[in-house]
Amino acid sequence: MAAEQPKVSLTGIKPTGEPHLGNYIGAIRPSLELTETYESIYFIADYHALTSIRDGAELARYTRSVAATWITLGLDPAKTIFYRQSDVPEIFELSWVLSCVTAKGLMNRAHAYKAARDRNVENGVKDLDAGINMGLFNYPVLMAVDILIMNTDVVPVGLDQSQHVEYTADIAGTFNHLYGGDFTLTVPTGIYPAGVSAKSLPGTDGRKMSKSYRNTIALFAPEKQLRKLVRGIVSDSTPVDEPKDPDTSAAFALYENFAAAEAVKDMRARLEAGGTGWGELKNTLFETLNDWLSPLRERYDALVAPGSELDAILADGAERARERARPVLAGVRHAVGITTG
Amino acid sequence: MAAEQPKVSLTGIKPTGEPHLGNYIGAIRPSLELTETYESIYFIADYHALTSIRDGAELARYTRSVAATWITLGLDPAKTIFYRQSDVPEIFELSWVLSCVTAKGLMNRAHAYKAARDRNVENGVKDLDAGINMGLFNYPVLMAVDILIMNTDVVPVGLDQSQHVEYTADIAGTFNHLYGGDFTLTVPTGIYPAGVSAKSLPGTDGRKMSKSYRNTIALFAPEKQLRKLVRGIVSDSTPVDEPKDPDTSAAFALYENFAAAEAVKDMRARLEAGGTGWGELKNTLFETLNDWLSPLRERYDALVAPGSELDAILADGAERARERARPVLAGVRHAVGITTG
Repeated sequence: MAAEQPKVSLTGIKPTGEPHLGNYIGAIRPSLELTETYESIYFIADYHALTSIRDGAELARYTRSVAATWITLGLDPAKTIFYRQSDVPEIFELSWVLSCVTAKGLMNRAHAYKAARDRNVENGVKDLDAGINMGLFNYPVLMAVDILIMNTDVVPVGLDQSQHVEYTADIAGTFNHLYGGDFTLTVPTGIYPAGVSAKSLPGTDGRKMSKSYRNTIALFAPEKQLRKLVRGIVSDSTPVDEPKDPDTSAAFALYENFAAAEAVKDMRARLEAGGTGWGELKNTLFETLNDWLSPLRERYDALVAPGSELDAILADGAERARERARPVLAGVRHAVGITTG
Repeated sequence: MAAEQPKVSLTGIKPTGEPHLGNYIGAIRPSLELTETYESIYFIADYHALTSIRDGAELARYTRSVAATWITLGLDPAKTIFYRQSDVPEIFELSWVLSCVTAKGLMNRAHAYKAARDRNVENGVKDLDAGINMGLFNYPVLMAVDILIMNTDVVPVGLDQSQHVEYTADIAGTFNHLYGGDFTLTVPTGIYPAGVSAKSLPGTDGRKMSKSYRNTIALFAPEKQLRKLVRGIVSDSTPVDEPKDPDTSAAFALYENFAAAEAVKDMRARLEAGGTGWGELKNTLFETLNDWLSPLRERYDALVAPGSELDAILADGAERARERARPVLAGVRHAVGITTG
């Protein structure tokens, strides 16, 4: 690839919950900034979510919600390729081929699988593979395919996700070594964008905002619910008049991330001086969030509704994704001896 | 399914070598007899072969050779569905879904995987997973999908292959338990047709005829080569005049399988009486085989040639296989929450 051409970056989004403020700061915003530097491709990894989600209606809802969220927050489907993994059947066929060149030992050492075994150890479960399905065990291969089938140059990853890119490079390298001739797979590299996963935003209970803690503030919760959630953020019982340390406050940490720098500075000074209560901070935080989200909420609600233009957007994205995927799969098929006719 | 309707049987054929006489007696003939009792479906498991074949040209050649062989020997593409696994992308997508409901522990206990580990033990290799790829580890899932996606009722298996059907039933049962509502997967049962894998035909060295022993007699070897191979069958040095025990002779074992009952009886008597040498037996065996195979060889050669009608036959089979596969995949997708639009 010539140096002048923008490199291709790929971002996968796993639909395992309603997108919340933590997702925005930790993933969505930094990821959307990549479009300034790269030809950026995004996909909803709905089939990845299947390793853990057993409720069909829930998976369908999350998938739609995540797609609508990213578009509402700035993903421009005209300027990128945006698709659902499940709309690209080429991915699953390539997944079989690459599993045949992937050492089982590599999967034995995969972080997610090892973490699941560790949980069995902690719980005193003798069979360390208990409760582990083959989707979880295989998913580093599927992830490699997601990357390789799009001819991806760079993959933005959090520091704890670098193994995926290493594995992908390993699998691509093995394929190229065994079969590479006229056709080779593009070996990707990881990039670590500032912001991605680096900052952890606190949730309503003060711990890291995470679906598993049930402490999230959904991005597009209705206004009433948003107010209720923000008011419910944990705070200590320091009286209004007394000086407060903003850096002990979950509400302030959220405010810092969503308010303008001047407003944050002003609020910090008022809290430290005394006379401003946590309740006032939360009201201001709510107003700030709501001012930002109100106009977006409308767009989101329209997109997430059944039969909305989201269907056409994703169908168009799927077609463009498959156009990229087909020549890669065709090259692989030919190399391994799967021929049509 | 109503009792009067013929049940559907499915047979997979792994293209890992040029079909030989042993394949005919142990697999092809008994398998083709199933058409009398079942609505029989056959497919070439080319993507299964990828777990062991690393030479693209070889895999392509074997695939074509196996397809041409079965048609030449009586598989009627008009009366059955006959397709290449790789022509049905639905198989690979379903494979991902079902891997997510397959316990890893089940795969840990799969015969082929355990055999590969045992070989590492025997060879003193410390890492028991050394040299084992994820295709080998995953293939019971792919095999289950092959069966389930065709709505198969019965699977003809050799006695050592019953695990595949048990695993398939297990995986289908888990899916139906987790997701089954209006849509369920058909749980198959194994059948053990007389003849399948029961008889082992000796090869040219007297051991079981098998590609791995390099002792096979290819079904459609050119006449000259067939003669040479038959003449080369191992025999002892009993002089022509002396009485012989036919049951110690590989050539006689072959003759028994391919000659008419009367001719076999006559040959047995002549060998036991003395005066008939092994050379004469081999000449007669060659003539018998060649009389049978000569007219077929022509048909085979025409089919196996590039650009032959085989292409259209397989393309038509693929279309009909996909017609069967699509509603199964659609039912599964809907159940797990993968929706289009």
